[in-house]
Amino acid sequence: MGSAMTEPATPVDNDSPLPAEEHGGVTDDQVRAVAEALAEGAIERAVALVQELHAADQAQLLHQVDAAQRAALVEALRGRLDAEVLANLEGLVQEEVLEQLGPAMVANAVTELETDDAVHVLAALDEEERRDVLDAVPTLERAQIEQSLAYPEESAGRLMQQAFIAVPDFWTVGQVIDYLRNSPGLPDEFYELFVTDPAQRPVGTVSLNRFLKAKRDVVVRDIMDADPTFLPAGMDREEVAFEFQQYDLPSAGVVDADGRLIGVIMFDDVVDVVREEVEEDLLLLSGVGEAGLTRSVTETTRARFPWLFVNVLTAFLAAAVIGFFEGTIEQMVAAAVLMPIVASMGGNAANQTVAVAVRALATHTLTTSNAARIVINELLVGGANGVLFALIVGLVGGVWFGSPALGLVFGLAMMINLLAAALAGILIPLGLDRAGIDPAVASSVFVTTVTDVVGFFVFLSLVTLLLL
Amino acid sequence: MGSAMTEPATPVDNDSPLPAEEHGGVTDDQVRAVAEALAEGAIERAVALVQELHAADQAQLLHQVDAAQRAALVEALRGRLDAEVLANLEGLVQEEVLEQLGPAMVANAVTELETDDAVHVLAALDEEERRDVLDAVPTLERAQIEQSLAYPEESAGRLMQQAFIAVPDFWTVGQVIDYLRNSPGLPDEFYELFVTDPAQRPVGTVSLNRFLKAKRDVVVRDIMDADPTFLPAGMDREEVAFEFQQYDLPSAGVVDADGRLIGVIMFDDVVDVVREEVEEDLLLLSGVGEAGLTRSVTETTRARFPWLFVNVLTAFLAAAVIGFFEGTIEQMVAAAVLMPIVASMGGNAANQTVAVAVRALATHTLTTSNAARIVINELLVGGANGVLFALIVGLVGGVWFGSPALGLVFGLAMMINLLAAALAGILIPLGLDRAGIDPAVASSVFVTTVTDVVGFFVFLSLVTLLLL
Repeated sequence: MGSAMTEPATPVDNDSPLPAEEHGGVTDDQVRAVAEALAEGAIERAVALVQELHAADQAQLLHQVDAAQRAALVEALRGRLDAEVLANLEGLVQEEVLEQLGPAMVANAVTELETDDAVHVLAALDEEERRDVLDAVPTLERAQIEQSLAYPEESAGRLMQQAFIAVPDFWTVGQVIDYLRNSPGLPDEFYELFVTDPAQRPVGTVSLNRFLKAKRDVVVRDIMDADPTFLPAGMDREEVAFEFQQYDLPSAGVVDADGRLIGVIMFDDVVDVVREEVEEDLLLLSGVGEAGLTRSVTETTRARFPWLFVNVLTAFLAAAVIGFFEGTIEQMVAAAVLMPIVASMGGNAANQTVAVAVRALATHTLTTSNAARIVINELLVGGANGVLFALIVGLVGGVWFGSPALGLVFGLAMMINLLAAALAGILIPLGLDRAGIDPAVASSVFVTTVTDVVGFFVFLSLVTLLLL
Repeated sequence: MGSAMTEPATPVDNDSPLPAEEHGGVTDDQVRAVAEALAEGAIERAVALVQELHAADQAQLLHQVDAAQRAALVEALRGRLDAEVLANLEGLVQEEVLEQLGPAMVANAVTELETDDAVHVLAALDEEERRDVLDAVPTLERAQIEQSLAYPEESAGRLMQQAFIAVPDFWTVGQVIDYLRNSPGLPDEFYELFVTDPAQRPVGTVSLNRFLKAKRDVVVRDIMDADPTFLPAGMDREEVAFEFQQYDLPSAGVVDADGRLIGVIMFDDVVDVVREEVEEDLLLLSGVGEAGLTRSVTETTRARFPWLFVNVLTAFLAAAVIGFFEGTIEQMVAAAVLMPIVASMGGNAANQTVAVAVRALATHTLTTSNAARIVINELLVGGANGVLFALIVGLVGGVWFGSPALGLVFGLAMMINLLAAALAGILIPLGLDRAGIDPAVASSVFVTTVTDVVGFFVFLSLVTLLLL
């Protein structure tokens, strides 16, 4: 069950240690206060209100105000805008803000950010804008960013940051601690120390908590995990997310084709991937490719048109099946009344199976070793629900039109279509996955076409053969 | 786009540091090898194969073999089964394994686990079984578990583990390090140190990496974050997940109603929540309440029946609308052929909007401050796609039946239904959310009912009024 039914959580009492500016994201009141300040022309008050927020909340606020307010805020904040805010923006809003700031300002921000965040910002720009920005980034940072950008878009190489801490395995804990205390340029966040050989190949890791419990004279080699998970830079980010979830990793080293350690992926980047991958499945199953309520009307229309177009084609196919039986409908209008019920139930039953199958494939629960068993299970479920709904609709249909024979035919068609729904619902995602196609992309279209066509055809055929 | 279209990631070369036993989850080959060993009666070989896997992979394997193989494995592993494996099992498989092991064995496992994992295992048992297990757990662990179980099922209190490290703010870094080195009972995993006052109220936190960079004589007070995020134990887990994602937290302290620190939630538990919450939305939108391909046929049938039953009711409602126009269909069978197209397009367009709206509500992108603007946007998108598809279907329908008038009526009905779809698709999730109901639960049902009824009614009315 979803959780929106429970009361929103509130701080436990007035002494609660929850600071307003780092809790629960941006509130409607905060958004309204900023909007009012802008409306009154009190630009500096608006800026002050924004700047007391956490960077992630500033980004959220920029998403929630309208385009004119956003432009005014960005103009006022120009030069004072935290680079982290840019990294927390998404989609159209990010594109707009980056364009407004211009290449020089974006280059400053990109230079400040960790590689993964810099790459996220740059990915929002087109080829030419990206060139302009990179030209204004200092050589070292530019080289690092370009190395990450060279990896495929949804790969580990794009997710990693290049700042990590590596030590040789013969150092003692004391030596490492002294190194950490006296090196000012170390990364802000790290959860493990990497142990590398002279060729920069990783030979182990030491988690910080394990490290902290060890005495100063212990040698790193003796407390390191010599068998940790390292991810190839070309690994797909969905597989990266699987590794993190399966083994509860706070971070994981990334290695290049020569086995050299080149970066580290942090859990927080993976949380975003996990959410985005499931959301992608959800939106694809609902016929939305790239989503977002905050895109422009033109963009949204363009994004939703293709799936609706595919649907209109399949709907015409189903209509053609009906057209084939015009004579039948003329003789028995009741068939036209009942036929959408057969099709609709088939579509819904199939979509249930598709949703479960798509997630089971994504979480590695549905595999070659259990596919046959699961197909049989789905057929049994389809059969069981088929019998139940055949009885229900057969009875209701028969009584409604005062014709037991019509009820019988209606029930029979329902049972056959629910079996077809079960088969299509499991075999189509399995087949697409086997063919290397994301099963979420096309499952619903194909599956609903099957259940519409089978539903109309079986029902109208049975009516024609048995009742006329 | 999903990522199943890319090649599966492979280790980069033969010297790759990827150990087979902690990478990519369990493979089909591994599952087959275990199944073969079991089939040949080589129980100890099967056990050895299982035990060389990571606990999470052992759990995954238990999900993938069939019930008889699972029972045989659990029987052979009895007493040697890693407690972590039990914590990694889900749903029906977890219930079966726990029942097979019996209360005494489960109690041993529960005693070994961190509170959050112990609670997850106990949640799979019914009241009486849970009592039996808890009676066999030592007093201290039992008290801790019961404290967690006292919080609501989807709350921070259930997610937290009670093992954390708290130090007073006047200690020096050196004192803390000595404490960590000399206290054997500390938790295995921790990412921050909590700083508490004598009443156990948190006054700050120190991340381990910050701590490691500080010199021995620095006082904790001077390096702590005095304004971190603490979560009330009653906070809903969806809000917990939002906090972690918004502020990239590796862990967060949990406080009780008196503001005392009582536990800590780790990022890896939150990753599961993030995935489960989006999956819940996905499955609810597809009409599956509680899912799982690995449940029994009876359970699956029972889980899917209710939504199909609601759908059959709404389908009959839509059929009743058609029944009202029997005379019209008798005079113009073409109407029966085309009417499912109007309904189907409306349903699909509405489901696109619902999916986007449900996710936007969950991620706090759709709020009171921008709702009006977004409703207008959706209407414009509905209008735009309405005009486009009115032209397409009007043309095709008119040509098909050689009647421009029918084409016109068909197109007009399409446009009206796509507008209705946009309105229903955004207003119904918004309304449910405002009423405190999870918008994913019921959106699709309501919305498709609207588009079916409006679609059939408008089209058949227009045909009756204008063409007969």
